[in-house]
Amino acid sequence: MSAPKKVVLAYSGGLDTSIILKWLQEEKGCEVVTFTADLGQGEELEPARKKALAAGVKPENIYIDDLREEFVRDFVFPMFRANTVYEGLYLLGTSIARPLISKRQIEIAHEVDADAVCHGATGKGNDQVRFELGYYALDPDIKVIAPWREWDLNSRGKLIEYAEKHGIEIAKDKRGEAPFSVDANLLHTSSEGKVLEDPNDEAPAYVYQRTVSPEDAPDKATIIEVGFERGDAVSIDGEALSPATLLTRLNELGGSNGIGRLDLLENRFVGMKSRGVYETPGGTILLMAHRGIEQITMDKGAAHLKDELMPRYAELIYNGFWFSPEREMLQAAIDASQELVTGTVRLKLYKGNCDIIGRASPYSLYSQEHVTFEEDDVYDQADAGGFIKINALRLRLLKARDRKAGLNR
Amino acid sequence: MSAPKKVVLAYSGGLDTSIILKWLQEEKGCEVVTFTADLGQGEELEPARKKALAAGVKPENIYIDDLREEFVRDFVFPMFRANTVYEGLYLLGTSIARPLISKRQIEIAHEVDADAVCHGATGKGNDQVRFELGYYALDPDIKVIAPWREWDLNSRGKLIEYAEKHGIEIAKDKRGEAPFSVDANLLHTSSEGKVLEDPNDEAPAYVYQRTVSPEDAPDKATIIEVGFERGDAVSIDGEALSPATLLTRLNELGGSNGIGRLDLLENRFVGMKSRGVYETPGGTILLMAHRGIEQITMDKGAAHLKDELMPRYAELIYNGFWFSPEREMLQAAIDASQELVTGTVRLKLYKGNCDIIGRASPYSLYSQEHVTFEEDDVYDQADAGGFIKINALRLRLLKARDRKAGLNR
Amino acid sequence: MSAPKKVVLAYSGGLDTSIILKWLQEEKGCEVVTFTADLGQGEELEPARKKALAAGVKPENIYIDDLREEFVRDFVFPMFRANTVYEGLYLLGTSIARPLISKRQIEIAHEVDADAVCHGATGKGNDQVRFELGYYALDPDIKVIAPWREWDLNSRGKLIEYAEKHGIEIAKDKRGEAPFSVDANLLHTSSEGKVLEDPNDEAPAYVYQRTVSPEDAPDKATIIEVGFERGDAVSIDGEALSPATLLTRLNELGGSNGIGRLDLLENRFVGMKSRGVYETPGGTILLMAHRGIEQITMDKGAAHLKDELMPRYAELIYNGFWFSPEREMLQAAIDASQELVTGTVRLKLYKGNCDIIGRASPYSLYSQEHVTFEEDDVYDQADAGGFIKINALRLRLLKARDRKAGLNR
Amino acid sequence: MSAPKKVVLAYSGGLDTSIILKWLQEEKGCEVVTFTADLGQGEELEPARKKALAAGVKPENIYIDDLREEFVRDFVFPMFRANTVYEGLYLLGTSIARPLISKRQIEIAHEVDADAVCHGATGKGNDQVRFELGYYALDPDIKVIAPWREWDLNSRGKLIEYAEKHGIEIAKDKRGEAPFSVDANLLHTSSEGKVLEDPNDEAPAYVYQRTVSPEDAPDKATIIEVGFERGDAVSIDGEALSPATLLTRLNELGGSNGIGRLDLLENRFVGMKSRGVYETPGGTILLMAHRGIEQITMDKGAAHLKDELMPRYAELIYNGFWFSPEREMLQAAIDASQELVTGTVRLKLYKGNCDIIGRASPYSLYSQEHVTFEEDDVYDQADAGGFIKINALRLRLLKARDRKAGLNR
Repeated sequence: MSAPKKVVLAYSGGLDTSIILKWLQEEKGCEVVTFTADLGQGEELEPARKKALAAGVKPENIYIDDLREEFVRDFVFPMFRANTVYEGLYLLGTSIARPLISKRQIEIAHEVDADAVCHGATGKGNDQVRFELGYYALDPDIKVIAPWREWDLNSRGKLIEYAEKHGIEIAKDKRGEAPFSVDANLLHTSSEGKVLEDPNDEAPAYVYQRTVSPEDAPDKATIIEVGFERGDAVSIDGEALSPATLLTRLNELGGSNGIGRLDLLENRFVGMKSRGVYETPGGTILLMAHRGIEQITMDKGAAHLKDELMPRYAELIYNGFWFSPEREMLQAAIDASQELVTGTVRLKLYKGNCDIIGRASPYSLYSQEHVTFEEDDVYDQADAGGFIKINALRLRLLKARDRKAGLNR
Repeated sequence: MSAPKKVVLAYSGGLDTSIILKWLQEEKGCEVVTFTADLGQGEELEPARKKALAAGVKPENIYIDDLREEFVRDFVFPMFRANTVYEGLYLLGTSIARPLISKRQIEIAHEVDADAVCHGATGKGNDQVRFELGYYALDPDIKVIAPWREWDLNSRGKLIEYAEKHGIEIAKDKRGEAPFSVDANLLHTSSEGKVLEDPNDEAPAYVYQRTVSPEDAPDKATIIEVGFERGDAVSIDGEALSPATLLTRLNELGGSNGIGRLDLLENRFVGMKSRGVYETPGGTILLMAHRGIEQITMDKGAAHLKDELMPRYAELIYNGFWFSPEREMLQAAIDASQELVTGTVRLKLYKGNCDIIGRASPYSLYSQEHVTFEEDDVYDQADAGGFIKINALRLRLLKARDRKAGLNR
Repeated sequence: MSAPKKVVLAYSGGLDTSIILKWLQEEKGCEVVTFTADLGQGEELEPARKKALAAGVKPENIYIDDLREEFVRDFVFPMFRANTVYEGLYLLGTSIARPLISKRQIEIAHEVDADAVCHGATGKGNDQVRFELGYYALDPDIKVIAPWREWDLNSRGKLIEYAEKHGIEIAKDKRGEAPFSVDANLLHTSSEGKVLEDPNDEAPAYVYQRTVSPEDAPDKATIIEVGFERGDAVSIDGEALSPATLLTRLNELGGSNGIGRLDLLENRFVGMKSRGVYETPGGTILLMAHRGIEQITMDKGAAHLKDELMPRYAELIYNGFWFSPEREMLQAAIDASQELVTGTVRLKLYKGNCDIIGRASPYSLYSQEHVTFEEDDVYDQADAGGFIKINALRLRLLKARDRKAGLNR
Repeated sequence: MSAPKKVVLAYSGGLDTSIILKWLQEEKGCEVVTFTADLGQGEELEPARKKALAAGVKPENIYIDDLREEFVRDFVFPMFRANTVYEGLYLLGTSIARPLISKRQIEIAHEVDADAVCHGATGKGNDQVRFELGYYALDPDIKVIAPWREWDLNSRGKLIEYAEKHGIEIAKDKRGEAPFSVDANLLHTSSEGKVLEDPNDEAPAYVYQRTVSPEDAPDKATIIEVGFERGDAVSIDGEALSPATLLTRLNELGGSNGIGRLDLLENRFVGMKSRGVYETPGGTILLMAHRGIEQITMDKGAAHLKDELMPRYAELIYNGFWFSPEREMLQAAIDASQELVTGTVRLKLYKGNCDIIGRASPYSLYSQEHVTFEEDDVYDQADAGGFIKINALRLRLLKARDRKAGLNR
């Protein structure tokens, strides 16, 4: 790989990526383009611009984009159509944001004629994989710089030293070791590392940033109604909302009701286990609501196929294969099931609980006439006898065979 | 099918199966053997004996068995090894009890030389399928009598009339229509029908029988520690407990903390949707605890394969194929993963919430040394670069191909 | 079900469906509409018209349709995109034709305002299921008449007697028992029953009707080149051909080279095993050719996902669920993989063998540069070291855990 | 990684591994232990001993093992129980041998107290992964040396030069570039590279080494009968044979009848496509025979589950994950299905064709009584009506819903 000349850096404005910015200029001799995305992480972005300028980045090389609507519409919602959870519990809040960052970074690289991209993820985690698979899938010739795998600034002390040496502003609370590491976007906040490293120690209360504890949530339940069209949430309590606005509202509702906390010990793609604390207030509501609307609108065959495909789909997203043919194939299957996933779901939010209490749809497949305990004119119970006999045939032949062969199994 | 002569009836002692008992004697001219099982449904069984005697059943033809330990040990626990949920939410409390009843009924039939078995499930539900697939799988020549698919007592009025005519005792509250129908065992209580038939109406509070509402649960959390050996729960807070005793204790813990309620609109095997309200207090804790112990002891490859197999496994149980070669194959795979699923999980129970707060195991696969943000001697971050490059290769070749072909996808 | 008044009969003009026609008129008192489809079975269809007229069917109630192009384009080709085989070997020649017949029958029913449809499949086979699931999926209110499950003409003798009584023409060779039963269309010929009923007896040579034996095939190989566009075959040896014309040509090539014979003992949907002899000359070539073109144009992730989905997809088609949401979901996934499955495959046909000997594509993903044993500039072998180390990490942690725990597994 | 001191080399005695041997001594300063396995590759092994001695390896450091029986019994046969094929066609002849070599190499390392192992696979292929995943899974602390990824002898010229410089014997035909590269064992011979690198060029006849061409095979068919017990082949034509002896005999039968050739363009685990020519004469017969015995002894539910699991299982073996929990889980499921896979299969071998012509078993599940076209007493055709109606219910509800909603889909 020849030396990179111009690099698009995924830049948060924080200490680490500020050091990377400088390191790219100093050690790599690169022209740096910074890219700062608003994915709903809840931070001001203008300070990033100032810091980039201060670091000598040309104004035209500073990109600050509000990607919140695209994030929810084109990444979060498609994923939720599959009722996606990783390892039974995790809503993939970090995983699903990475492909969008990669995509935009490559777009900018093409716009500014950069030959390289750079991210600040470490060499032990999943994010490096997600970023880089995204980069390579969208530009096979792009050069990728992953400083954490390359440099020798592999301790807090060395980083601080480097920052001081290069006049990089260090927030007071960044001088010591952070007690845990955080990632946030409109879908979730994740925390990991340090105080969380012993998986048998309860996560301390101060780790949680986005949700009140169930104990601190209101003593009275909140009832909401989420409207869906073609598998995507479109309204709350009858009010039509854009994707990002809707998720923001659900986050408020979930967060204030103590909903969406998860303490997980998970398997990373790179082969080690790690412990994370996740807060996904709106996503937790959205998942339950989507299950509710599918319950009433989706055929059993489709629903069960979706359930079987989901773990693979979740694994692909977790591992960073959003831009892969197999993820797109699964998405095509999933999306083909959502055409009539339309209607409303009522949910009760109460101190950490999020329960479906009603569902309705113009495309309901529920037939009270069929299911009633009363007499009906639509279902002949005798049919069930034939259904059972034919389903049992192979089992009876098996047992008869065993008997004939003198087997007692 | 020639006329049955001697039939083993799954007999609860309730009105419906008492009518069936009489009907078998009168209409079928059968000698009736009653079988009443204690599966933890929480009812006295001796009244069933009295009623059977009163109906003219010979004392030696009355079987009353306590199957609680067998139920939990050989059915509930194997199912929980797979973290089994049906349609994302349902813990299969009714489904898993049916095969045991079938099995014992066939055993009794062989003991008493009966040529037929009979159950009281209707022709619209799943239970008829579960009972009968079990019967046939264990005795291919058995005759099966399903009165609800056969007789003309297809309304409450006709049933009451038949009961009165034959001197069958009718509890006062059974004269009118029950507002909903209930099934219970040590794993769960299910309610369905009547007041629950509109899936958009919230289930009334009086439907719940086994759990307090989250609102009514204590304001203070309960912390428990569940111990596991080889994938099965063996202790609570350090006290070794038999399977049924343990589940009973978890039911108390869950029930009093408002845990395990579910309002579900599900897809029946027979093709219609139905709405059920389930209370699975102990099972909900058990599922979460099992996930917790697998998090720390199970390899990623095994865990993900289990996740992918689970929906199929759940469907088999729901549909009544417990005694099928494919269920046994899946069980073999699942059980092969549980050898070292041993350790303890701490859980916090609070107003409907059941959260893992710690896990520990002598067979832990978690390596703090590998995952730490600090420097380490066990993991070479540069390896991740190669890992990503090789994983990306096919994606790069794809994109390069698209470019070469002038495709802009 | 009220009595049907006007029924669309799937009518071949053969003895059995002629008897059904009469039976519908006589016993059911129905007005009969006959529908005879040309699916490439290789029979004259005009005799069917004459027989229908002779049986008193009104001219406007006689439908004779050439469905060959639709059959191959909309049913055979989509199925082959998935490299579909049932139970490892069967190319589903009968299964894939049934949905089209059902579809057209329902269309005609709507055109002529009929309230019922009828088919001549027996009560033991798969075809009854395939026809009727198709009918019901396309018209939930249609009445379905399945004479073989209903009437008492359940022996050859009774049928002949009925035919004679009603003046139905009986071909000489139909008087005795046929030595086996045949179904044919453009994709295959199947034979089953009678002389084939002992699965340990070799199928006699006279069963085969569409292929010469490998022994009788030419001593010289035939080389052909099949062209593909978007996953479907479009040309042979450079000559563009319509779907049905192409399959016809492949049938000639395969049949004359002894290709596509299969002696199978298979599992029917209704629970019993049956033995069939299938001849699928063109389909066998098409399957191999499609594999060849996918080898060079399809990404590994897509290819492996397709392989995993295929058995389920095949089972759905075999069981008659063509018109089901889950088949459509799988089709969406499969079709999403075929966009660039374009190019040519050369095959060698010789005495029963059909071997790929070359493949080429403008969308080739094969990179000689990457795979060469020579030095290259595109692949860094050191990356593979990292790839292996990271893939091995979890396995190493497993073994280290086992050692630490004193386990010797 | 500290410098290795004593290394167990997988040593064939050929030029490449002889150079590696010397290189380990010279460049790595290691004591070398050679391990040469007889896996049925058809080469004399004693020359390897002589060459090792000549290179200065101590006699006690030379291991030559006949692993043929273990190879077939513990690796090939378990794999064939699953009817395993990779990418639809490949019988995994190379893949399945690697774990055994790894296993024995690690055993020897422990016996001789070596701290490292070494193999001669290149950095582009699958074998490096298979070897090394095996090593690490069995000894997490072992040092692995992969010279091809490390040294600079990356051309034929440099290798020859190194050999000459170190007095390594060079067979005459090894001086030039080999036209293709070969791997062989009792299951197959694979060829790849050089003359095979253009996937559109037919493989030249001289590439094939183990099978005659179909054209050159006898004009008369050979009929054989393969006996199975519990899923494994145990006899040919009634003669009981050990696993390796049996496979050897099948290889002769297959090879002389032109059976088992495959020209494949496949997807490597490392992300590139490669073209291989495989000859698996005995394995091809074994696969077909195993399918045959399963046809008659295996229940549909088990068979279809096996078909669905197989592609994943094949991928795991291909990718080198034999010693992984998920492969072992799948094996447990597969093995659980084989208990009664016992009986005989007759096959016709003729000029490349291998066809099942008969199967018989004491555990047959085939019931002529059920399948007959004649009248029977065991199957009530009316049951099929109920079976279809219940299976159709959800499809009817779907269509009724669509109609009600005014959708015309």
